[in-house]
Formats: sequence, structure tokens, C-alpha cells
Amino acid sequence: MKPSSVTQPHVAIVGAGFGGLRAARALANAPVRVTLIDRRNYHLFQPLLYQVASAGLAPEEIAYPVRGILRQQKNLTFVQADVQRIDLEGRYLFTTAGPIPYDYLILAVGSVTNTFGLSSIAQHAFGLKDIDEALAIRNHVLSRFELATQQTDPDVQRAMLTFVVVGGGPTGVECAGALAELIRLVLRKDYPNLNLSRARVILLEATDRLLSHLPPNLGQAAQEALRQKGVEVWLKAQVRDYDGQCVNLADGRTLPTQTLIWAAGVQAADLVQNLPAALGTQKRVRVLPTLQLPGYPRVFVIGDAAYLEDENGHPLPMVAPVAMQQGEHAARNILRALQGQPLQVFRYRDWGSMATIGRNQAVAALFGLHLKGWVAWLIWLFVHLMQLVGFRNRLVVLINWAWEYFRYERAARLIYPLPPAHRNAPLPAAQPGETSPMASLTTCRPN
Amino acid sequence: MKPSSVTQPHVAIVGAGFGGLRAARALANAPVRVTLIDRRNYHLFQPLLYQVASAGLAPEEIAYPVRGILRQQKNLTFVQADVQRIDLEGRYLFTTAGPIPYDYLILAVGSVTNTFGLSSIAQHAFGLKDIDEALAIRNHVLSRFELATQQTDPDVQRAMLTFVVVGGGPTGVECAGALAELIRLVLRKDYPNLNLSRARVILLEATDRLLSHLPPNLGQAAQEALRQKGVEVWLKAQVRDYDGQCVNLADGRTLPTQTLIWAAGVQAADLVQNLPAALGTQKRVRVLPTLQLPGYPRVFVIGDAAYLEDENGHPLPMVAPVAMQQGEHAARNILRALQGQPLQVFRYRDWGSMATIGRNQAVAALFGLHLKGWVAWLIWLFVHLMQLVGFRNRLVVLINWAWEYFRYERAARLIYPLPPAHRNAPLPAAQPGETSPMASLTTCRPN
Repeated sequence: MKPSSVTQPHVAIVGAGFGGLRAARALANAPVRVTLIDRRNYHLFQPLLYQVASAGLAPEEIAYPVRGILRQQKNLTFVQADVQRIDLEGRYLFTTAGPIPYDYLILAVGSVTNTFGLSSIAQHAFGLKDIDEALAIRNHVLSRFELATQQTDPDVQRAMLTFVVVGGGPTGVECAGALAELIRLVLRKDYPNLNLSRARVILLEATDRLLSHLPPNLGQAAQEALRQKGVEVWLKAQVRDYDGQCVNLADGRTLPTQTLIWAAGVQAADLVQNLPAALGTQKRVRVLPTLQLPGYPRVFVIGDAAYLEDENGHPLPMVAPVAMQQGEHAARNILRALQGQPLQVFRYRDWGSMATIGRNQAVAALFGLHLKGWVAWLIWLFVHLMQLVGFRNRLVVLINWAWEYFRYERAARLIYPLPPAHRNAPLPAAQPGETSPMASLTTCRPN
Repeated sequence: MKPSSVTQPHVAIVGAGFGGLRAARALANAPVRVTLIDRRNYHLFQPLLYQVASAGLAPEEIAYPVRGILRQQKNLTFVQADVQRIDLEGRYLFTTAGPIPYDYLILAVGSVTNTFGLSSIAQHAFGLKDIDEALAIRNHVLSRFELATQQTDPDVQRAMLTFVVVGGGPTGVECAGALAELIRLVLRKDYPNLNLSRARVILLEATDRLLSHLPPNLGQAAQEALRQKGVEVWLKAQVRDYDGQCVNLADGRTLPTQTLIWAAGVQAADLVQNLPAALGTQKRVRVLPTLQLPGYPRVFVIGDAAYLEDENGHPLPMVAPVAMQQGEHAARNILRALQGQPLQVFRYRDWGSMATIGRNQAVAALFGLHLKGWVAWLIWLFVHLMQLVGFRNRLVVLINWAWEYFRYERAARLIYPLPPAHRNAPLPAAQPGETSPMASLTTCRPN
């Protein structure tokens, strides 16, 4: 490896998620300087974030310091900062750590929760995109049980113990399944005097099926597995609003609950929405098949932030494998450009998709096979353990999972007080409303 | 075991720390009903809290849900609530979960940080008594390094990288040692471009020695071990005030720093200070040798909250072994009272004391032996691992420690954003001031 030098081309990568990290690694031995910028100092293994929310894992088990991951990469500098503006003509990033010039830019900024303009959701529901949101859910859910033990009004107690998850995609399905297991297998033992027939986990999905990215029979299998775990699945259930106590559906149904977890949609992060480019669905930036931003050949957009269609005209899904493959592809295209070679078109190699529904249950469409139940769950477990960054995290997570599996336990069911978010973390934390438990119960009647 | 009944005497225990937990367990098979009340839903293994602050352990590794610990104890009810007032005559606790009557009461409410009336310390320094404070320190310290990489002014950079710990007791010594190791062994690799000769860890102690609860030669050994790890120990250094940027000492010395960790003292928790009883040092309640509150034979005060002297007239130290032995003793005295037997006087069985100074270094006075170095460290490790509640926590902690030891790593060095403290957690989180890094640097000159 040649030592990096200030005369070498400078590649800036924004975002240390799956795409940005893979792009950075693909440039490790290249004759370029790399600057990786992220608001956080860690890479988050987001597919397991719902396990933090459901008290199964500690945040430290699914997050890893970026500097630790890329310590060996001598041509890389990490900057913890928020990118506020991009000067595409002058090739500058303006960040909270000052301006950063670039020769090539990879935008791997990911996605944020999309509440589809429902301000009551933005105000009262929990998102599930980062550690603070997962910890807020954990604290809130466990606190509902503590408060329920101190509550004599059965209607209020039911609202406290009703947990509504919105969105029948993988996040919603996994989160609902994990919450149901937390209640039925673990909290049942913690709260022997609580009438847990009043506890419900309800999954709301606006369309007529779950896991629309998988074949219909697997969506049905997931629905049946959720039912067996005690989750009520409501299809064609579109949320109109939520005031912190009562969910109103578009068809007039109402549901008293103090907990609404919003996993119904994401959209590209704000930063890319101001780029001079057409947007695809979910505000993703339409990129060229080479992953370049149209009109700006030195700028690449990848992962959840980028919109690209496959050969059949379907948009590529917002999942980690797409982001990782695009990260590597963008890095290679930059190296091709530096060598004067023509850039190559990105093609997604789709190995399949899967989703887990808790203990022993998963569905997977892999290599054309449709798998469900125990076998799919073992594959899911193996794939996710292998992908977790760092040997140590993997081992600790494996121990936790084994512990939970054999003891029906959840090790992390702590309600711990939390210090205020640091000023270096510019994203505001979710602040679900804490209104009076009696509010709106008079008008909100369960169906 | 007889099943508990509402006609059985009711023992209320306030506080699920070492003392309260031990008292609850000692009543497991007794013909009483037990209610354990704590603001938190977890028992915290406080002796290792400094390892959360120094990014070595996750909070989940040193905290364990109270309901999980006491699940098998059929005569016990846990209530997560804050006790606001005690009606000693009517025998009622007034809590955020409503009033709780009692026949016997054990107050095991522990201690809080004592800033000795220094309001600037209360406002700008970090305490180290609960998880939120430890996470606040972790976020703050790691953020200082990130900000230092973005800082060109060497004076500001020095203030960012100067970490001051106040208090030469076990907490201060352990915290300073762990921070120094974090910097020299781990962050040195994370920040290869940062001039770490500007990083300092300074331990301030008002008296002329460290670890005053141990023999003088062990205090000197600790001081030498700290020095070898790169900690500057300032003795006879009494803090006058701190504005978030500059520490002023009583002798006129000043020290520019953005981080002051206050481990200089504790005092009994507020709840017991309003009891109609004389207070000893550190606002601890003077109890009878039977651990009863004078004039209220049904009320026992134990642990950090209680003041009792040994045969030589020395106050019993505020440490976990005293609290645990007193918890068991109070429980037995209640059972004696129920059987009409005379209560027994508490005698502390002192097995010894120890403190660790990071990797391979500890000091211990055990069974009259004075130990230091590697042997003391192994004993320290063994004792603390054995005491950690729950097999799973112990195993995960052991893996983390082994990982750190052999890899010179710190697994938990994450700056994660944190949601607002839940309303069920009434203790306000430490909110150290975030003033401009340039403030007061003009008047604050290092010595």
C-alpha cells in the first residue's frame, strides 16, 4: 500500500451505515485519501435495533465505534459531524466541523422515518431508526407495565398494556413479534399479579398483506406465526391520527393505547432532498445506472438515499445488501474514473430476503426457495450473527441470544434514566407525548 | 414455606441497592409480606459504574431488573416509585404510586453526591452515582476527543483533553485510572493524528493522601500505580469552584478543563434527612446499635443512610459490605421482634477493602494482609465477578474484560444520543454546562 498523500484525490463519504462503510473499505488500498463523515461515532447494525427496543440486547451489542472498525485503514480520516449543505459546483461539504472539500463524493446518508405528513404521529408515536428511539421504546414499554401494576381502572390498564405497531414490513413484523414474546415469555413472570389478558400487541398494516417484498405465501406464514405468538394483525388498517392515547383509523375504528410504534415507512434523509435532481418514490434521488448524480459525475448516491430500478422496472429495495453492493460499486467506479476507464453500470445481486417473528419462527425467500419456521429462523440467526461487525460483539450477542432462548429471558429490561442528548448529536430525540392516562379514553372505545 | 397472607405483618423496604436487596432476600421464607420500593426498576452494581463512564462496560452489564432477581420470592411485591414522605406515627409511606402502609420499615435509600454546598460544582461537574451520569461522562469524554480533532487552537485543545477527577477515594482512584488507560491504550489508536501529549488525567485530592480507608503504604502504592499509568495526582488540592472551563483551587492554582468528575463525597439521600433523628457525619441518620431509628422501634435504617460507630468509635464506612450485613441484620431483628425475642446489636465483620487502578494494578487490605499489584488485581477481579448479580451478566462482563485485556480495547466507546428521561425517573439528570470553549480561557492559565 502506498502511503496517502495530500496530492492524492480526496474521496468524501457521508454516512457510516452499511453503504458508506463498505465504500470506505473498498478504497482501503487505493491511491486516494478518504474522509468518512457521520453524525454518530458508531456504525449501527440497524436490522437488530428492534431487539434493543424489546429489551433483548444492549445498544453496545449492535453498535460499534467507526474508528475501531476502520483503525487499520491508513488512508482514511473519520470526522464526526453533521453535513448541513453541499456546494456541488465548488465541491465542498459544509459541516458542523467546518468545510470539507472533495474531489469525489459518495452520499450514503440513508433514510429517516416517514410519517406521511401526519403531524400527530410525528408528535406522539415512537420511531425506530436509532439507538435513542429504541431506548425510548424500551423505557416506555417497561414503564407501562410498572404503571399498570399501580392502576386499578381496568380501561386505563388496558390502554397502558396495548402496544400498537404500525407497518407490516420486516421492522413492524419483527418488532411486534419481539414485543409479544417479551410479554408472554418474560414479563408474565415478572408481573405475576398483573392480569395479562389485558395486554395486547396489535400490528396495523394499511394494505391487505404483510411483508409485501416476499412471496404471498410467506406473508401468510408470517401472519400465522404472529397470531400464534399472540399478535393481533389488522390488515387494511390505515392510521389517520394518534393523540398519545387513542389511535383513529381511516375506516372509523378507534383503539385506546399509550404506545404507538411507527414502522410504516421511511424516506431518504433530508440532505439529499435538496440536490438538483429528480426524486423517485420515498424522496430517493434518481441516480444514473452508474450510481452518479445526473449532471455531477463526481457525486455518487447509494443505498436508501438513491433511487434506481432493476431490469424489470422495480425500484431497488431499501435494504442493507443493496447499500453494501452499491457502496462497493461506487468506490470501484471512482477508481475507474481516476484511471480514465469507463464507469460500469450497477446490477443488484439479490440473494433473497427474510424476516424473523421471534423465537423459532422466520420466513425467508433465498435462492428461489421459500423457507419458513425453524429452518428459516436458524438461517436468519446465522446470517445476522455473521454480519455483526467485530468478533466480540458477535460473541456477546450470541451469548445473550442463547441465554434468552434457553431461559426465556430478556437481559436488558432496564428502565434507566438518560442524560440529555449531547450537543454533538444534532438529531432531536423522539419525545412522545406524556399526556394524562385518562385523556381521550371517554371518546376512544376499543373495537 | 407458608404462603403469604394479607393478615401477615407487612415489611416495607425502601431501596433496592445492596442493603435493601439483602434485607428482602433474608425475609424470603419468613411469615411476612414484603414490599420493596425503588425509583428504578433495576439493582445497580455501583462499584463498577466507573467502567460504564470509561467506556468499558455497557449499563446492561452492571444493572439487573429487580423483578428478575426476586422473581422466586413469593411473599414479595416490587413497586417502582419515589418515596416522597414518611408518616412515622401513622406508619405510612407516601409515594408516587400512592400511599403504602407498613408494620415494619427498612430504609435502605443509600447516598447521593455531596458537593459541599459548591453550587458551581452542582451545575458544571459530572456526578457518578447512577447510569445516566455514567453515560453522560462517557458521551462527554469521547466527544472531547472528536471535538479536539476539529480544533486547531492548542490551548482549547488542551482544555478539551484535560480530564479532572476530584476525590482520592476508591471511586476517584478507579475512575482516574480507567480514564488514563482508555486514553493511553485505546484512544491513542483511534486518534492517530491527535497530539495526545496534550491529554492529561488529573486526580485532585484535598488531603495529603489517597485511599484514606486503607493503610498509608497502600495509598502510596495506588499513587505510584496511577503515576505509572499517566495520571497526575495533586494532593492538598482543594477545589473552590468550576465554571465548566476552569477549575479554581483554594490555594489559587487554576486548571483549564472541560471535564470535571466529582467523586469527592457523598451524603445520605434526602429522604432520611427529614427524619426526627440526630444526624452523624455526611447527614447519615444516627441509629441504635440494633439499627432502629431512636424512638421508632419499627423503623430500621441501614447502609449509607445510617450512621453507626464501631467499637473504636469510628463510623462504619459507606460501602456495600456494611449495607449487605446490615440488611440481613435488620431483617433478622424484625423477625426477632415478631417472635417477641430481644433484638440483637449489629457488629460489622470487616473482611477488608480494595481498590483497582486499571489493568494489572490494585491495592487490597484483606484479613490483615496488605496486597498490591497483579495479585491484588486478580483478587479484585474475582471478588467483583462473583458478586455481580446473575450468571449471564457475569459471563458477559468476563468476556468484555478478557477482550479488553488481551486486545487493549474498550468495546463500549459509543457516543449515542439519548432520549429524555422518563417521567417515572424523578431524579434530574446531571446537566453539565456547555459553555463556549473559549470562555474563561483568557483568565484560566494552567499551572
